[in-house]
Amino acid sequence: MKKDFAVGLDMGGTNIRTAAVSKTGDVLLMLRGPAHAKGSARETVANISAQILALEAAALRRGLGRAIAIGVAVPGPLNVRTGVIYAAPHVKAWRSFPLRRELERVLKRQVIVENDANAWALGEYWRGAARGRKNVVLLTLGTGVGGGLIVDGKIVHGRSGMAAELGHVTVEPNGMPCDCGNRGCLEAYASASGLCGLLKKRLQLEESALPAKYLDSGGEFSARKITNAAKMGDRVAIEIFETAGNYLGIAVASFINIFNPELVVIGGGVAGALSLMRPTMTREVKARAFRAAVVQTRIVRAALGAEGGVVGAAFAALNAD
Amino acid sequence: MKKDFAVGLDMGGTNIRTAAVSKTGDVLLMLRGPAHAKGSARETVANISAQILALEAAALRRGLGRAIAIGVAVPGPLNVRTGVIYAAPHVKAWRSFPLRRELERVLKRQVIVENDANAWALGEYWRGAARGRKNVVLLTLGTGVGGGLIVDGKIVHGRSGMAAELGHVTVEPNGMPCDCGNRGCLEAYASASGLCGLLKKRLQLEESALPAKYLDSGGEFSARKITNAAKMGDRVAIEIFETAGNYLGIAVASFINIFNPELVVIGGGVAGALSLMRPTMTREVKARAFRAAVVQTRIVRAALGAEGGVVGAAFAALNAD
Repeated sequence: MKKDFAVGLDMGGTNIRTAAVSKTGDVLLMLRGPAHAKGSARETVANISAQILALEAAALRRGLGRAIAIGVAVPGPLNVRTGVIYAAPHVKAWRSFPLRRELERVLKRQVIVENDANAWALGEYWRGAARGRKNVVLLTLGTGVGGGLIVDGKIVHGRSGMAAELGHVTVEPNGMPCDCGNRGCLEAYASASGLCGLLKKRLQLEESALPAKYLDSGGEFSARKITNAAKMGDRVAIEIFETAGNYLGIAVASFINIFNPELVVIGGGVAGALSLMRPTMTREVKARAFRAAVVQTRIVRAALGAEGGVVGAAFAALNAD
Repeated sequence: MKKDFAVGLDMGGTNIRTAAVSKTGDVLLMLRGPAHAKGSARETVANISAQILALEAAALRRGLGRAIAIGVAVPGPLNVRTGVIYAAPHVKAWRSFPLRRELERVLKRQVIVENDANAWALGEYWRGAARGRKNVVLLTLGTGVGGGLIVDGKIVHGRSGMAAELGHVTVEPNGMPCDCGNRGCLEAYASASGLCGLLKKRLQLEESALPAKYLDSGGEFSARKITNAAKMGDRVAIEIFETAGNYLGIAVASFINIFNPELVVIGGGVAGALSLMRPTMTREVKARAFRAAVVQTRIVRAALGAEGGVVGAAFAALNAD
């Protein structure tokens, strides 16, 4: 019998991943295409639709069955019920944009849309580090900091799907400016842009020239380069991660006191440097959260890489009401 | 036909309230007795049991029916499933104490135990300010700061019932010391003890003698006296509330970004001075939380007074699995 599948699509700022995911969460086939995030709203819808159709064509050639559900994970807060995206940091054309309706108009089928960090949390819950856990806090440390919350086995959406903006809790009232307009958000410390901002501030204080070891080929600060420098023993870079870990720990301590979770899962590119942040993170968690809750909480790396979002988007589609 | 009822009991540091609550949430009868919080574990159980039996006797005399469920709300984190209390701030004898089992042994009936702030949240949800709301953050500003969380219509307990310790999120990393051992918790600012601590620090800075207007009859700082002084125009007292409101706003902004709630409900004795805190609270909420979520959130006073806990405890008992 031909194997039916769910389509899981994960749209990032640069790329779109589209996968055929089995009913048990196996990725049967995954394609990657451009996000065209700077296009018009109509172009983004056409692009997403085209990649879904391309996946289905590829699945047909591989002898797979049919797509029984379609889940689309996108950055930015959205209303899961109506499928309207309020605003997406990397897709300027999406302002109060009815993505779900527009995709359904083109594809003539039901589409589920979900926030990308929520989708990742669902992926970890279904097939990753959070399997069998009912209360999970997921943090994605990437360009920004995203969040996904599982309470009693269900994603927390809030009133209209904007919940779990865990990167935008205040960890230092008069702290570093954040892209959201606030000051002292977790994202202003424990993200790629946060690390670069901390380094910029630190070097200004010392009035040094910008050392090449922290710069990418375009002459911009690079979280990857800062990570490499720290791993090579660079004292300034190590201190940047200690600061990031300190604030990550302050936030995680609050999440533990708020959620009493079994698991805190940390993913995203910056999580590759979690070992550099762990000492100060752990120190703050132990100092700030209730011991009885801390001893019940494991803080782990995400188990899924690039496939976390697509697997979770497929899960959301398969489990839609 | 005689009216059956649920028993709702709310144990505070000083008093216990015990009520007969109808299946629709009406308080049919309420008694008040001493908490005997400093007694031995055995004495506290005997005291709670006696007050439940006294309520049932009084209900009988009033011509009411029988108690069909018993709910007991207590301070401090506990495991709702097992009924074990980890620790209660005002009841020193309760350390990993199996309150539910001990009460069931004496009363020979099923007893539900719930955290008092969670019970209050359930009371507000059933009969108070949060009626019909599915996503609610409740803060009780009393001696300390308690919290109750309703997500998608259900109380958030976390892995083992210790969730919603909303008074112990960090709002100022190197801030005021908190009774929990941490620094800069919300409770260290927006509670009665927090207000007194802020005033103490402020007056020390100015090296004044302790002005009588802030003291109770025992010569101790009194949140009530500070409130009265502020309402009379006392500049120092007003500034204390501005500081408390500032940190309350920082915490509420984070809760809005985390939960995207319909409602933030603020209760407890210190909420009587909410108007003194509201300007700085609102300023911080607007500056720090996502606008799209803020406009969907109302921040209101709790509607239930002393009966909030007993009504919620009865609700928990009537709706137990």
